[in-house]
Amino acid sequence: MARTYRVVIGVMGAAQCDEPTYGLAKRVGTLIAERGAVLLCGGRGGVMEAAARGAKEAGGLTIGIMPGMNASETPPNPYIDVAIFTGLRDGRNWVNVCASDAIIAISGGYGTLSEIALALKIGKPVVLLHSWDVPARDFAPLYVAETPEQAVELAFQSAGVATASAVQTESS
Amino acid sequence: MARTYRVVIGVMGAAQCDEPTYGLAKRVGTLIAERGAVLLCGGRGGVMEAAARGAKEAGGLTIGIMPGMNASETPPNPYIDVAIFTGLRDGRNWVNVCASDAIIAISGGYGTLSEIALALKIGKPVVLLHSWDVPARDFAPLYVAETPEQAVELAFQSAGVATASAVQTESS
Amino acid sequence: MARTYRVVIGVMGAAQCDEPTYGLAKRVGTLIAERGAVLLCGGRGGVMEAAARGAKEAGGLTIGIMPGMNASETPPNPYIDVAIFTGLRDGRNWVNVCASDAIIAISGGYGTLSEIALALKIGKPVVLLHSWDVPARDFAPLYVAETPEQAVELAFQSAGVATASAVQTESS
Amino acid sequence: MARTYRVVIGVMGAAQCDEPTYGLAKRVGTLIAERGAVLLCGGRGGVMEAAARGAKEAGGLTIGIMPGMNASETPPNPYIDVAIFTGLRDGRNWVNVCASDAIIAISGGYGTLSEIALALKIGKPVVLLHSWDVPARDFAPLYVAETPEQAVELAFQSAGVATASAVQTESS
Repeated sequence: MARTYRVVIGVMGAAQCDEPTYGLAKRVGTLIAERGAVLLCGGRGGVMEAAARGAKEAGGLTIGIMPGMNASETPPNPYIDVAIFTGLRDGRNWVNVCASDAIIAISGGYGTLSEIALALKIGKPVVLLHSWDVPARDFAPLYVAETPEQAVELAFQSAGVATASAVQTESS
Repeated sequence: MARTYRVVIGVMGAAQCDEPTYGLAKRVGTLIAERGAVLLCGGRGGVMEAAARGAKEAGGLTIGIMPGMNASETPPNPYIDVAIFTGLRDGRNWVNVCASDAIIAISGGYGTLSEIALALKIGKPVVLLHSWDVPARDFAPLYVAETPEQAVELAFQSAGVATASAVQTESS
Repeated sequence: MARTYRVVIGVMGAAQCDEPTYGLAKRVGTLIAERGAVLLCGGRGGVMEAAARGAKEAGGLTIGIMPGMNASETPPNPYIDVAIFTGLRDGRNWVNVCASDAIIAISGGYGTLSEIALALKIGKPVVLLHSWDVPARDFAPLYVAETPEQAVELAFQSAGVATASAVQTESS
Repeated sequence: MARTYRVVIGVMGAAQCDEPTYGLAKRVGTLIAERGAVLLCGGRGGVMEAAARGAKEAGGLTIGIMPGMNASETPPNPYIDVAIFTGLRDGRNWVNVCASDAIIAISGGYGTLSEIALALKIGKPVVLLHSWDVPARDFAPLYVAETPEQAVELAFQSAGVATASAVQTESS
């Protein structure tokens, strides 16, 4: 059966980052939007903001999976279109992983590491872009990219969703 | 500070329903989309499908908060734009409630009742449309509607988001 | 295969209650412990404290499923032996239900109503003791008790764990 | 205020393991029980079973935080006293971390890595015993042990609960 809902690429990274990392994440967001996928992230600052900004400025749709119950607890960054408040705190990292067709981890702290690990636990593709040096075990769908272009290409390929833009056209 | 992310109205109801209920839910979805809000639901059939269909056919954006980890476990109905797989089973009802500015409950079984109750527990507005006869206690933001038009009007008013279409225009 | 782990009876109710309700809940806790089951509750005050107190003073084991990430956020009542901090807020109500062989709802507010509803959604037995007037639909395992003795008897029977004390003896 | 509930030490590891790892985990479980703390684990086989077995055979109390909704989905290992079914799948790893005063990671796969990362994210002490080589950043409470004895000593020290046996005596 043809897939009717949109492709979602998750971008994971820390809530604070330096400028080069912000630039990488923004570019990744732009490329995801240009390929017609939805950008999902944790909705906060740093890498999450940069990725959402890149996607939104390219006309894409951005989803933030928020740790808090509401915006008073965890305000979404200004580039989030739809804020999914979860009230699960960092337990929402599990949702980030399940809800993405593939994730791209950019730099990142322990929260990002948890998302990489949870994704690999359930066989969800992970692309590392200047991120944690996690070893690939068995047949884990783990990829390493050097550039935003490579990262996004690997994410789409590994998720088996090369037809993202087609799907988006139909569903828009 | 001005709100930058979109208004989300949740529509809760059973995965199977009769035709009149399907019609009510579809009309509710249409009205939500026409007022510029995002339609959120549990992503399955019945009332969830009807509401998503109404919203989507009116050009709106539809989000399904799915109980399963992936589409094999719980396939989204064909009117869902973005499927947020949670892997939380019925624990995702908590996310449905946190992520909505207000919820409209239409008919529904015990799952719907749990969403009504969780919403009222945290002071989230609930509009009942031919749904459970839940008593209002203390200052619970609980409203009863007779028609889809009333239900949607009450949802927007009680959520304090009368400016939904304005917000949507800015963020689109 | 013989069950090797202990029977768990959940007692659900509000974090604040009047004295007669406190007395009912305490008696329920005592009876659960006397029959060799573990007492599970939400770990807070009111009905949860009373039930834990009754169980603990009768020599039973008490588990509190806490909404917060730690004791600073949500301190367990003094009769909880093992506090399971979840960091899920009211999302932990889903865990309360899954972790119990049956639940007894005593009086209670909207949180309790959500637990009754979630339990019935997944076919988990619910005993109402001076609690919400929830209608039984289809074959929902829903029972109404007038006394703590009836409530506990119904909980054990409906959970199919009449052998609780035997199990406890083996596993102690 | 004196703490009234019991100390909980979590042991994290894979559901399958070789014999030397099983031996290490069993010894860790024994030592945790001998110091009067509750043994918490994911409730499944391998390292989880070994740790629970060690604790239980030493007279300790064992808690399994189960991924499934019930025993049909995820049967607890035979050394679990209290099975807390969560219905959250691997999302329960977040609960494992919140519910433990400190965690000891033994060998382990990606699931274990996610627990190490989630713990460090919220500042919960982690002791690595022949486990993932995770770097300590900033002031992360991360410790490396060579033996079960060291691991358990570090877990109690880092959790600031040297008085575990005293607490257990009072609460038993």
